[in-house]
Amino acid sequence: MKNKEHIDTSIMSLGPAKITSPIGAEGGGTRCFVSDKERILVNIFESDVMKAVKNGKKLLSFERAGPRCKIYFDPSKLRCAVVSCGGLCPGINDVVRGIVLALHHNYGVRNIYGVRYGLEGFISSYGHELITLTPDSVLNIHERGGTVLGSSRGPQDIESIVDALERMNVGLLFTIGGDGTMAASVEIADEISKRQLKIGVIGIPKTIDNDIYLIDRSFGFDTAVDVAVNVIRSAHNEAISAPNGIGLVKLMGRHSGFIAAAATLAMPDVNFCLIPESDFDLEGPKGLLEALKERLIHRKHAVIVVAEGAGQKFFDNKPKERDASGNIRLNDIGLFLKEAISGYFREQKMPINLKYIDPSYTIRSVPANANDHVLCGFLAHSAVHAGMAGKTKMLVGLCNNQLVHIPMEATAGKRKQVHLFGGKWLSVLETTGQPSLKN
Amino acid sequence: MKNKEHIDTSIMSLGPAKITSPIGAEGGGTRCFVSDKERILVNIFESDVMKAVKNGKKLLSFERAGPRCKIYFDPSKLRCAVVSCGGLCPGINDVVRGIVLALHHNYGVRNIYGVRYGLEGFISSYGHELITLTPDSVLNIHERGGTVLGSSRGPQDIESIVDALERMNVGLLFTIGGDGTMAASVEIADEISKRQLKIGVIGIPKTIDNDIYLIDRSFGFDTAVDVAVNVIRSAHNEAISAPNGIGLVKLMGRHSGFIAAAATLAMPDVNFCLIPESDFDLEGPKGLLEALKERLIHRKHAVIVVAEGAGQKFFDNKPKERDASGNIRLNDIGLFLKEAISGYFREQKMPINLKYIDPSYTIRSVPANANDHVLCGFLAHSAVHAGMAGKTKMLVGLCNNQLVHIPMEATAGKRKQVHLFGGKWLSVLETTGQPSLKN
Amino acid sequence: MKNKEHIDTSIMSLGPAKITSPIGAEGGGTRCFVSDKERILVNIFESDVMKAVKNGKKLLSFERAGPRCKIYFDPSKLRCAVVSCGGLCPGINDVVRGIVLALHHNYGVRNIYGVRYGLEGFISSYGHELITLTPDSVLNIHERGGTVLGSSRGPQDIESIVDALERMNVGLLFTIGGDGTMAASVEIADEISKRQLKIGVIGIPKTIDNDIYLIDRSFGFDTAVDVAVNVIRSAHNEAISAPNGIGLVKLMGRHSGFIAAAATLAMPDVNFCLIPESDFDLEGPKGLLEALKERLIHRKHAVIVVAEGAGQKFFDNKPKERDASGNIRLNDIGLFLKEAISGYFREQKMPINLKYIDPSYTIRSVPANANDHVLCGFLAHSAVHAGMAGKTKMLVGLCNNQLVHIPMEATAGKRKQVHLFGGKWLSVLETTGQPSLKN
Amino acid sequence: MKNKEHIDTSIMSLGPAKITSPIGAEGGGTRCFVSDKERILVNIFESDVMKAVKNGKKLLSFERAGPRCKIYFDPSKLRCAVVSCGGLCPGINDVVRGIVLALHHNYGVRNIYGVRYGLEGFISSYGHELITLTPDSVLNIHERGGTVLGSSRGPQDIESIVDALERMNVGLLFTIGGDGTMAASVEIADEISKRQLKIGVIGIPKTIDNDIYLIDRSFGFDTAVDVAVNVIRSAHNEAISAPNGIGLVKLMGRHSGFIAAAATLAMPDVNFCLIPESDFDLEGPKGLLEALKERLIHRKHAVIVVAEGAGQKFFDNKPKERDASGNIRLNDIGLFLKEAISGYFREQKMPINLKYIDPSYTIRSVPANANDHVLCGFLAHSAVHAGMAGKTKMLVGLCNNQLVHIPMEATAGKRKQVHLFGGKWLSVLETTGQPSLKN
Repeated sequence: MKNKEHIDTSIMSLGPAKITSPIGAEGGGTRCFVSDKERILVNIFESDVMKAVKNGKKLLSFERAGPRCKIYFDPSKLRCAVVSCGGLCPGINDVVRGIVLALHHNYGVRNIYGVRYGLEGFISSYGHELITLTPDSVLNIHERGGTVLGSSRGPQDIESIVDALERMNVGLLFTIGGDGTMAASVEIADEISKRQLKIGVIGIPKTIDNDIYLIDRSFGFDTAVDVAVNVIRSAHNEAISAPNGIGLVKLMGRHSGFIAAAATLAMPDVNFCLIPESDFDLEGPKGLLEALKERLIHRKHAVIVVAEGAGQKFFDNKPKERDASGNIRLNDIGLFLKEAISGYFREQKMPINLKYIDPSYTIRSVPANANDHVLCGFLAHSAVHAGMAGKTKMLVGLCNNQLVHIPMEATAGKRKQVHLFGGKWLSVLETTGQPSLKN
Repeated sequence: MKNKEHIDTSIMSLGPAKITSPIGAEGGGTRCFVSDKERILVNIFESDVMKAVKNGKKLLSFERAGPRCKIYFDPSKLRCAVVSCGGLCPGINDVVRGIVLALHHNYGVRNIYGVRYGLEGFISSYGHELITLTPDSVLNIHERGGTVLGSSRGPQDIESIVDALERMNVGLLFTIGGDGTMAASVEIADEISKRQLKIGVIGIPKTIDNDIYLIDRSFGFDTAVDVAVNVIRSAHNEAISAPNGIGLVKLMGRHSGFIAAAATLAMPDVNFCLIPESDFDLEGPKGLLEALKERLIHRKHAVIVVAEGAGQKFFDNKPKERDASGNIRLNDIGLFLKEAISGYFREQKMPINLKYIDPSYTIRSVPANANDHVLCGFLAHSAVHAGMAGKTKMLVGLCNNQLVHIPMEATAGKRKQVHLFGGKWLSVLETTGQPSLKN
Repeated sequence: MKNKEHIDTSIMSLGPAKITSPIGAEGGGTRCFVSDKERILVNIFESDVMKAVKNGKKLLSFERAGPRCKIYFDPSKLRCAVVSCGGLCPGINDVVRGIVLALHHNYGVRNIYGVRYGLEGFISSYGHELITLTPDSVLNIHERGGTVLGSSRGPQDIESIVDALERMNVGLLFTIGGDGTMAASVEIADEISKRQLKIGVIGIPKTIDNDIYLIDRSFGFDTAVDVAVNVIRSAHNEAISAPNGIGLVKLMGRHSGFIAAAATLAMPDVNFCLIPESDFDLEGPKGLLEALKERLIHRKHAVIVVAEGAGQKFFDNKPKERDASGNIRLNDIGLFLKEAISGYFREQKMPINLKYIDPSYTIRSVPANANDHVLCGFLAHSAVHAGMAGKTKMLVGLCNNQLVHIPMEATAGKRKQVHLFGGKWLSVLETTGQPSLKN
Repeated sequence: MKNKEHIDTSIMSLGPAKITSPIGAEGGGTRCFVSDKERILVNIFESDVMKAVKNGKKLLSFERAGPRCKIYFDPSKLRCAVVSCGGLCPGINDVVRGIVLALHHNYGVRNIYGVRYGLEGFISSYGHELITLTPDSVLNIHERGGTVLGSSRGPQDIESIVDALERMNVGLLFTIGGDGTMAASVEIADEISKRQLKIGVIGIPKTIDNDIYLIDRSFGFDTAVDVAVNVIRSAHNEAISAPNGIGLVKLMGRHSGFIAAAATLAMPDVNFCLIPESDFDLEGPKGLLEALKERLIHRKHAVIVVAEGAGQKFFDNKPKERDASGNIRLNDIGLFLKEAISGYFREQKMPINLKYIDPSYTIRSVPANANDHVLCGFLAHSAVHAGMAGKTKMLVGLCNNQLVHIPMEATAGKRKQVHLFGGKWLSVLETTGQPSLKN
């Protein structure tokens, strides 16, 4: 958190918002508008705050999300577009639904388009048709996993995208996607600005790994943990049902082990939780293999959860591939561990029964659970309020349990990770009882 | 939030903690201890904070929870007791399990007792035997609803309780319960202090209604919303399957409509969400009945969710009863609405099909979901760390997404409610499209 | 099973089927057609069969369901209608979907109508519009509970219904409903016959109670048991969590206790299972109250499951009401037991904690589970094959695990019940350990 | 079904049963005993039965299961053992629980042992201790997946097993397992017979694939389909969310495609269902690849379900391995198809998005669903009744919806398969719309 103070948290805008907002629930005459001056502190440790104030330092804070009393766009003329990019995540349909309903019912916007299959949908050569989104067409989509818009990986030419926005006469674009999509959104906003267009770009960050910098919890994460818990339960049942049974589960988590850690806390039959943030050795007196052997000798079974990004050091000599989004294709730590463990115990002449489970896409293609339904609705509403107010190049998210506006560039290139000296990881270690696994 | 500044947030202690803690996960030599000086701000609005600082006012903050480097009790001699009181809530078994495992594995405490059937368990005339709690006996209890300790409602004689604690030679008591239990815990702590005993009392507040003052989210709430969502889905299916179908669902929420509001946000087929915080009229041009008729005429079906504490004004002339916990027994708004709606449309000669669902105990007696499993584990660990450090007369909870210590008296007699001009209720109104329902 | 031999099991037909069927999966040149001569025995006890054969008695058997090689209707000209009547049951949407897809894809029928809100939909004064059903419109409806057609209770004028069928030019009507609907279907078929029309009427019997005479299992029953099991688990959790805790659950089952019995077998924490078929006393040395007291003294908690039709003798002096379908409105045995038990233990000065759960509509308005999805598909396909072949006044169902054609009148006015000397009820008694409960 | 008539269906017995059974629910004086003369017909087609009778042929039938009025063993002296072998299957714990409770409560047997880790548990060199099974120890095990006894694959020395039975003084052995286990059970019974011991061997056949010859449905199958449906839903969500999205799911089914077929019927978004019974080509104008391309061109997405035993012809040149149970280790058709499809479309220069899901152990290690809970209870009760009556070398199962006794050898070496010209497969073909896939 050292350099957080240097982040610029001011939100860009297309121009002054001058139209009186049509929304706001009346309650005894008061409307529920939020002022741009309402800002939420990022660091909420009292001593840090006091020290900063004493030293005359600016406190890092984010604009609070919510409806503004003046809006920038004339709803009757506005055309909006929504696009979802990258891998699936529970709740994308909730976000799409929430955006459409809020634009339609709260602001009276009547022209809303779904861009098909991610950024591909802007590029005419792919031949993907736009979808017209209406309250009726999105009514029940939140009950289904996936994305009704379709998605795709990978970048597209920024100028062509902005050409398409101009051609479609879109005033407000909502982008649902991960790191790469937010980076592309920044470039789109910059190109828009360069062309002096009045098109707002609002991001709803999507990452099932829950690794967005400065954001408490991203949508879909809690649902993924729900599913992961069931997979671990299966692995545990396999492990206890065989002599020297080992249940090995690979979970999502490229750079951050939040799913693995949360699932371990929720399903505390896990004995070893391996995440990218925490280095571990395989061999040697304190390595995983020896610790696993100890466990089997004493308890006759073991459950191991490994995040896909853990232990990548074991592949240091292997060439790195990249997927369509440009992410480095990780080497498969699950299969690697399966082989390594099997080989080790074969050498030790100790028969084991290893059951490897890779739930893969089943974690991410389910509908949102209740908690994520609620979060997605809040994010969608916040995105619409921000967009209608003329804000741009920003995303919405939860910070210290409050919905806030964050400049897209503030989270770019950084990543939230499991803090190895924090309470969550300490709880994981207490739950598993696992040793350091480092020689 | 006006008078929050006057709350005394300092935590009482049995005496200086002098024993070196056995716990703390090593990570490169550093242990993960938390200092009492780490405090979390309650009000995290930047302008409020700046104004307070300028005016020289103290900022309201809570001690951060977590393991302390020095502890008060000698684990090898300590005897601990756990008691659960009041109505069921998903996750009680998780909390019990977490306390037992943390005491045993982290601190080496070997004598842990479960007090049966709430405060009754301290009173010998009831004849309830203590349970010995061990890691083995609690291993799988988190997968079951209810409480393995048993519970009961209502107060018991405080002096007799402290007599029992003395007789049992208990040094640390963990109380899991609601308002009444926390009030009793204060009295117990005061009696302990009067007798100059060295017994710590740590509370883990339990309320399925999520209405604890100053606390973000209490355990079991998220699970209850999960179940409520399924009930609303049933009501919706009933409503759409009959001409002029009305699905009417009563949910928990004596004084606060958080379950009703969250379930409405998660299952947005609700057309009217009625909560204690928001007054509504039944009759008259803007009343519920007229609005319901409008809805049926236009859409042919309707779903109504009512929190049990809503609309109690309709029973003003009825005598109030109290339950064993001393809570005023609410008049049944669900059955009242069922009759009122049926009568109204009978008069209007408009045939309807009303299906009333009262899920009652099915909301609260299920096992915790993944999210609540995690929260319960954190609360249990935090309670144990606090208790071992010699703290007393305090409870643990989430504040601004951080686990903190709160003096029991700080939350007593107050209650968190749905803020009618806040973002959550605004989202509910946007989702349902319901009018003010006030003439 | 005494008089089963007197049932006429021959299937009526609109006339000879002369058109070559367009369907049948090719497999090495053979098509999968079923002949009317393939008949399934009803009584499959070897000795009964041998005795009947020796005595020259005809064996009772049903035509096997399945595609016929000749069909009666010209698909290109045929108009079909589907109607769902009575209370909800999991799987109605599956049946509707299956009928539409089979008519469309297998036979090429292009005009399929949904009649809205049960028999009301035929009566113009109600003003319910027909729905056009297409493969697209029914694609995902099986994932939702309720019925997309809507339903209603109660009879309508038969002549008006047939007038409507004539006006709509319908050749094939599929009726989904219970006893009353099948009785109405018989009358409709008779009126059609009287008018010498060529309209087939095929029934898909619906009863969540699983009490259709001669039929193994009706759709929705298995799903209802799934839900009931969760409710009983909640009741058990409540019971064990309080001193002398009693969980009392009321389940569906007007005349037959199949849901209560199956749920008890699936969730064997039930101590008393009360069904309509098995008389029981409340008072007296062998009555329920005394047995319950015994149970509480020895085990401290108890779970009671009562089918809604059980113990109706306790209301003998009360006037009987009827619902819109003409069913006698049962007096509420759940509330009655709640009061009776509470009163008894109050008198006995033995404090208890009774938690009463009436899951009501939540049992029936959920989507079908996998098993019912499959059954509904089979029933729908069977109904379409039968209808296209020109059969009428019959229903489809499972008999000895085979899909068969049953004349509507064969099941009318009779009812399957739990056999008190059969293996299922014996297993229930073994599971609960409950005594006879009769003085 | 040609040679069914030659099966010997008479049940072996240890000797005459002479002790009056302690069980039987009294109902007006009548006990619910079943006579050995009650037999259930296997072929229930009327014409087949009539033809057989006319030709003087014996009808194939099975003894009906249930309590006998005389038993063979003196319960107070009897020692029983239960063993579970082979791969996991939902419901094993239910069967164990049901056996223990029925032996204890119905017959008063007090010495029941669990043999650990399959047949290994009989062989002292493995060092697995016996478990004492009591009503208390099995009370809640049905709520957990796996097997509390543990399991293992592979044969053990038959003589050593019978030595162990003698040493343990066991009179009644219950074996839960698949093909191999039933074959071993036959050998054990033969060795017992050779030694002139009085030890009964009763099998409860276990196969998640539902492929036991002559048996309607084996336990765990329905639960497996429940889980498979969710996996297919995920695959479908992946497929529709990407341009030319293909969801490919591998399900269990070594020799029989029942899980794949039932899951396809329950989750009708599947476009290609590939099972071992139905040969298919990959290449060529009618092969899978061409059909898949057609599908993508017209509908832009596709879902493929493949049973693990399908398409093994593609591996004809590969050497066959065997697992510990002696089963031929199948080559991985899932990965093979993944590669073949990817390669084909790469060649075709048609970009696709293939998502491969192998749910592996998650299908089989879950707890039984309600339907399987009930079936497992019936099987356990039937096994106990049969064993107590002195029957041996037989297994229990459902035939034409009735619980029956089947000689172990009658099902040995045969296998139930999906009938390619039967109604179920026809329904699958109608649901998927898939062509023959054969050139």
